[in-house]
Amino acid sequence: MDVMAYLDHAATTPMLPAALDAYVEAAREVGNPSSLHAAGRGARRLVEESRERIAAVLGARPSEVIFTGGGTESDNLAVKGIFWSRRAADPARDLVVVSSVEHHAVLDAADWLGAREGAQVVTLPVDGDGRVLPAAVAELIAEAGERIAVISVQWANNEVGTIQPIAELAGLAAAAGIPFHTDAVQAAGQIPVDFAASGAAALTLTGHKLGGPVGVGALLLGRDVAVTPLLHGGGQERDVRSGTLDTAGVVAFATAVEAAVKTRDEYAQRVAALRDDLVARVRALIPDVIFNGAAGERLPGNAHFSFPGCEGDALLLLLDAQGVYCSTGSACSAGVAQPSHVLLAMGADDARARSSLRFTLGHDSTGEDVEALLAALPGAVERARRAGAWKTPR
Amino acid sequence: MDVMAYLDHAATTPMLPAALDAYVEAAREVGNPSSLHAAGRGARRLVEESRERIAAVLGARPSEVIFTGGGTESDNLAVKGIFWSRRAADPARDLVVVSSVEHHAVLDAADWLGAREGAQVVTLPVDGDGRVLPAAVAELIAEAGERIAVISVQWANNEVGTIQPIAELAGLAAAAGIPFHTDAVQAAGQIPVDFAASGAAALTLTGHKLGGPVGVGALLLGRDVAVTPLLHGGGQERDVRSGTLDTAGVVAFATAVEAAVKTRDEYAQRVAALRDDLVARVRALIPDVIFNGAAGERLPGNAHFSFPGCEGDALLLLLDAQGVYCSTGSACSAGVAQPSHVLLAMGADDARARSSLRFTLGHDSTGEDVEALLAALPGAVERARRAGAWKTPR
Repeated sequence: MDVMAYLDHAATTPMLPAALDAYVEAAREVGNPSSLHAAGRGARRLVEESRERIAAVLGARPSEVIFTGGGTESDNLAVKGIFWSRRAADPARDLVVVSSVEHHAVLDAADWLGAREGAQVVTLPVDGDGRVLPAAVAELIAEAGERIAVISVQWANNEVGTIQPIAELAGLAAAAGIPFHTDAVQAAGQIPVDFAASGAAALTLTGHKLGGPVGVGALLLGRDVAVTPLLHGGGQERDVRSGTLDTAGVVAFATAVEAAVKTRDEYAQRVAALRDDLVARVRALIPDVIFNGAAGERLPGNAHFSFPGCEGDALLLLLDAQGVYCSTGSACSAGVAQPSHVLLAMGADDARARSSLRFTLGHDSTGEDVEALLAALPGAVERARRAGAWKTPR
Repeated sequence: MDVMAYLDHAATTPMLPAALDAYVEAAREVGNPSSLHAAGRGARRLVEESRERIAAVLGARPSEVIFTGGGTESDNLAVKGIFWSRRAADPARDLVVVSSVEHHAVLDAADWLGAREGAQVVTLPVDGDGRVLPAAVAELIAEAGERIAVISVQWANNEVGTIQPIAELAGLAAAAGIPFHTDAVQAAGQIPVDFAASGAAALTLTGHKLGGPVGVGALLLGRDVAVTPLLHGGGQERDVRSGTLDTAGVVAFATAVEAAVKTRDEYAQRVAALRDDLVARVRALIPDVIFNGAAGERLPGNAHFSFPGCEGDALLLLLDAQGVYCSTGSACSAGVAQPSHVLLAMGADDARARSSLRFTLGHDSTGEDVEALLAALPGAVERARRAGAWKTPR
């Protein structure tokens, strides 16, 4: 196989060489950042410098950066931790409000609170582009604001790339005194993200979506936002997240965040141009293809289609056989025989949801990746349609 | 400063070059192990091979290895997850049993269950060496076995190095149908640890205590042990622990576990000889020093003393100024103005607990580290005593 076109950057993107170098350099030094001796203090210094670097480029104060083990942990900490804390302070606050297109790390955390911890989960509808309507949030707050413990809406969708009106939503929540969490895992480094300006109380980041390591992330958390910890122990990270700080991982993460944010505009322009070319040419090659998600307010690297008459999984594997790597939706749900909850929430029927593929570009994407996809796609669609017709007549 | 004697390996030990090389090699490849395409399958293969390598050297089945973000997460998952799951199945099971010398990741997780989730926490006493007495556990099970949700006793203590009678304790629990968890963070790679032979239902491991990366660990978990997840989301790791698998971290962790276990006997012999020399010579230099913990059933690299008339923190900083790095107890509690709960549980009074220092050797320790300590110690003790005498007359 000569071609290798990686079009799945939203699942994970390669670690930047500078981030990997930073990891190696830090990992060669010994020292637990909680230790009082010079080796520990050296590690602590690296962690605190990393905290400052991340805060500086994302509009946060250093003390608002809580290092975690990644996006899933940050989402769980925000949703469960804020719910527990708010309900303990006021038992009437039993509502957890999430959009219907959240990542499973938010949805399933909320569902668990509903099933096991006495919460009531309210799901916000989205329009056909996958966008949460601020009017729906305003209405909910007017009706039941004093019962809401936390609202969580992602900054940008991981499947279709739709960007949410975060400042507007966070503003509504803040005006009602409700902590607003946003999962910005897909947004940070791709589009402007400023924690203070957003008005959010908590914001999820992870390393491996922007050129940092897997297993390192952060929750940006306002100083006045009370959170019950998920992980108890040594009391690291303002007592919000116990566990030995991963100095090397944190330094690599900060290196990646800084690099991604600093090169963001140039990156977004370059990648959006590649993506627009990809979209236009896929539409020309497959005339009945359906383009999913917003045309305008969308992540620069994201293209998402439904291919009528195809099973997305079959199409994925046919493209894979040609060295073209993409996804039917969230990697975290890959292999699950369920149509995407995101597509269904956007009003797609089951067949359209199941016929979908996501192509996501990243920092090392080139025109050759797009060419490889375009060369392989028509034949793959043709085969997937024949297979689909054989299984279920159209 | 010419000397640099790192005697704090129990806080964190340097990453083995082979583990760091393995990290770098894996991190240069892209692919989310949950993705279905070839890049994802390649990453998945690395994760599954790592799972098999860890299982093979620790007496577990590959399917019993649940990768986590480290020791604190594994401990929280075991204690909270087993408690939640058992109590949901049988509301009468409200007791969480822990030893009084556990790491804070177990103690504080249990305390939170007690304060916020309706558990009752029972603390097991220890003898003067820090050892849990099986008779106490047998008695508790006889009295209230049907109310116990989970028992958690560490394999070896992180402060004084005392090894617990795990097989005996786990056997008592198993006979009563009670899941037994053991934090083996300090034991694995230092002394023989065999999950199946131990009879434990769950066992905590972490990378950075045995030459692997920080932020990667595992919970060994019997197939029939039900656990409520702490982190909900993509359903990775048998649905027990969601979150993108850190392929590079996992490969590095497996490399370190395998290396540590395979070289364990030779390592333990070499390091115990250094430690015994250290202990004998400290005793000769400081005649009134108190040696804490067991003489026999003890981790090979651990030496722990109380220095009458000294503040441990002051002594630590005086040694630090000479390039000798050690700890007053758990790094996770460093800087906390509390005497060690471990020493207090062993019967030490407040003054003795506060006068304690831990010296821990590891894979790169040499006789020079011991010499550096012995050269610096008498002067440091003398100064710390003068400072202590000035503050509080003896």
